[in-house]
Amino acid sequence: MKNILILGAGLSCSSLIRYLLQNAEKEQWFVRIVDQDKAAIESKINGSKHAEALVFNALDPEERKPEIEKADIVISMLPARFHVDVAKDCIALKTNLITPSYVSPEMKALNEEAEKAGIVIMNEIGVDPGIDHMSAMRVIDDIRDAGGKMKIFESFTGGLVAPESDDNPWNYKFTWNPRNVVLAGQGGAAQFIQEGRYKYIPYTKLFRRTEIIDVENYGRFEGYANRNSLMYREIYGLQDIPTIYRGTLRRVGFSRAWDVFVQLGATDDSYTLEGSENMTNRDFINSFLPYNHSDSVELKLRHYMKIDLDDSLWDKLVWLGIFDDKKKIGIKNATPAQMMQKILEEKWALKPQDKDMIVMYHKFVYQLNGELREITSEMVNIGEDQTFTSMSNTVGLPVGICVKKILNGTIQMKGVLIPTHKEIYNPILKDLEEYGIEFKEKQIDPPRLYNEEETWK
Amino acid sequence: MKNILILGAGLSCSSLIRYLLQNAEKEQWFVRIVDQDKAAIESKINGSKHAEALVFNALDPEERKPEIEKADIVISMLPARFHVDVAKDCIALKTNLITPSYVSPEMKALNEEAEKAGIVIMNEIGVDPGIDHMSAMRVIDDIRDAGGKMKIFESFTGGLVAPESDDNPWNYKFTWNPRNVVLAGQGGAAQFIQEGRYKYIPYTKLFRRTEIIDVENYGRFEGYANRNSLMYREIYGLQDIPTIYRGTLRRVGFSRAWDVFVQLGATDDSYTLEGSENMTNRDFINSFLPYNHSDSVELKLRHYMKIDLDDSLWDKLVWLGIFDDKKKIGIKNATPAQMMQKILEEKWALKPQDKDMIVMYHKFVYQLNGELREITSEMVNIGEDQTFTSMSNTVGLPVGICVKKILNGTIQMKGVLIPTHKEIYNPILKDLEEYGIEFKEKQIDPPRLYNEEETWK
Repeated sequence: MKNILILGAGLSCSSLIRYLLQNAEKEQWFVRIVDQDKAAIESKINGSKHAEALVFNALDPEERKPEIEKADIVISMLPARFHVDVAKDCIALKTNLITPSYVSPEMKALNEEAEKAGIVIMNEIGVDPGIDHMSAMRVIDDIRDAGGKMKIFESFTGGLVAPESDDNPWNYKFTWNPRNVVLAGQGGAAQFIQEGRYKYIPYTKLFRRTEIIDVENYGRFEGYANRNSLMYREIYGLQDIPTIYRGTLRRVGFSRAWDVFVQLGATDDSYTLEGSENMTNRDFINSFLPYNHSDSVELKLRHYMKIDLDDSLWDKLVWLGIFDDKKKIGIKNATPAQMMQKILEEKWALKPQDKDMIVMYHKFVYQLNGELREITSEMVNIGEDQTFTSMSNTVGLPVGICVKKILNGTIQMKGVLIPTHKEIYNPILKDLEEYGIEFKEKQIDPPRLYNEEETWK
Repeated sequence: MKNILILGAGLSCSSLIRYLLQNAEKEQWFVRIVDQDKAAIESKINGSKHAEALVFNALDPEERKPEIEKADIVISMLPARFHVDVAKDCIALKTNLITPSYVSPEMKALNEEAEKAGIVIMNEIGVDPGIDHMSAMRVIDDIRDAGGKMKIFESFTGGLVAPESDDNPWNYKFTWNPRNVVLAGQGGAAQFIQEGRYKYIPYTKLFRRTEIIDVENYGRFEGYANRNSLMYREIYGLQDIPTIYRGTLRRVGFSRAWDVFVQLGATDDSYTLEGSENMTNRDFINSFLPYNHSDSVELKLRHYMKIDLDDSLWDKLVWLGIFDDKKKIGIKNATPAQMMQKILEEKWALKPQDKDMIVMYHKFVYQLNGELREITSEMVNIGEDQTFTSMSNTVGLPVGICVKKILNGTIQMKGVLIPTHKEIYNPILKDLEEYGIEFKEKQIDPPRLYNEEETWK
């Protein structure tokens, strides 16, 4: 019997817990789940005899340590800032650890101690980061093993609404943390490299520099640049690659309309608006427009943002209700970003029957046997319902499968890791296919280049 | 004999020290000047028998305390963050203090202690802040004393190049800290109120929301909004005013062209550029533009920023040499803002014979005896040369005159103050006129309103 300990049982754990319980009998697992909310755990355990609810504060080392000691592996679903403390306990108690979060420098620094303790601390094993690493590295390693040399790597991921539930002019609904969507791109200029030239896009231009991506059977998407593409050269062993670019996917037209709010200043989270509790949607928009005693908010906005009368972008704005002069937004001391989020949450909410969708797209151009070639790799995954969403499945399943592969000895590597190694990604990607999380790889001929001469260099 | 102690003798002190020495004989003053750079002090003392150079570290309390004790008044020209420590010494030793800098919350908190010690700690007594407070409060107090009610207050200040030295298409040269010019507006959204409506302008729109100002004999200027106009309601006792707006003056057309760099991201100071030491001006601009193997940087920039072929804004950009592909900017690990500053410093440098200019413009609309009326107040001051610049004169003279008025008992108020009181601003403004720093007040008929009905409310 192997003991699995889950710290934190939030919404995103549904798919993970279902996977573990479905496999518990066969794999001889017993799952202990720690949370402060007993009902939340029990609804996920759903009467299974292979699991137990533990109600205590997982952030308290004295309470969690005895449980970590009993476990063969710990899964930390706590907020990312707590992972390092849990990792230190796991090292001291020689217990394996998995987290879906980014490796922090503090976590990375524990590598040697983890190796010495003979444990694995696996990070970045959700969807993004996680499935993106695994699916990209499989192709990159294949290319290198065949003697190829990587020239272009572009990678896009998006959390969107499924086509069957897509019924608004933005072709978008919130399927994950709304606050992160409102603040997207504000961390600093996007940085990437194209044909050896470093390129920088500030927030003010981010949503006007999108690229178009066609995905088989799912139509067109657009991608805007993620903050830092450059660090992926190191992570993927592509130090000399002339082009690397990572982005976020939306349906075509989203970014151009979203940019209206960026330019207005309506996504600013750095100050609070005077009298925000009494503002209507219309007052909110008007607070960013020049004063005039008779001109309408509509015309002022059209003029300020140079929106033509026949531009369908306008329909998106109207549909959000931003010109409503009756309904108060109703938040005290709110920042513009908080007000914007409130307006959007009502309009971009998933309806009870709606499903979400994760789309991932990689493009690889490489040089092999005197030729330039291109491969694309695409994955589209649609959620089951609002519990087993695509977001929950694509985070929970790789974590769960990784648990299995560590406990059954398929993954033997030790230390602080991310899933960029064959030993890790191959068995996990294989199992993910059984759950419909599958990448379609295609050879594209002729390869799509920026400039043949440059790419050959 | 009265003893005056000056802490710090940087470039901006020339006019202050000249004023004190010119008046020393008559007023029976002796001036001690502390700096680490003996030559810098001696060039300013210029052989006067009324002054002495003290070479020690003014930041060291042990060294400065005996000198503060000997003094009747201290002038701190140290960087603003050191003023509070000096103020605490001055309270302990019961010595008056003057600084040209903004009152920090820590400084404000010393008010009661300063009153108890029977000293004055005068702050914000340079040009902006300083002359702006005094010249505005004189008109505001006059209006209130006559029974008027303030409705609109707008105030603009600019540090510019004098007309006789204005020989470039930007009509601008650096006359003060270049770094502050490059970073201007980045502290957060500009906030003000117009006809009772709060208005917010983000950095990305700041330089496209200018207002036009005509100044007698000096032509047209444009003003962009300063960060926080709202706090001036409290400072000037205008809590209920429906319109208050403060801005920075430039020559017309400056802001629209500057906005090209804002939109590009070339003023960003939050990250460093890869390989900045090898970048030419052209490479720098190109790093913010989409990659293309054959299109010119010029056309990419015109297209990206939608600059028409016949737009004279283009001449400003070309004149700066931003398309130069020979000359390296030559700074390692530089932020975009640092690179931009280096390009500008060469082009916007004052030539040896050039003079600078300070322009200040206030607009007051008020209600009196059943009528709406408008007064404007304008001041233009031109520097003498590159030592006694307008910036140095308009900072140093109010400080020097304030010293005189405190030492001769004209100013009797105690505590932590700024010059918004009649007892302070009246005698200082009067003396400033002898030095050509003079405001021209004019009645404007009919008053220029946003909307008569609103203003009457």
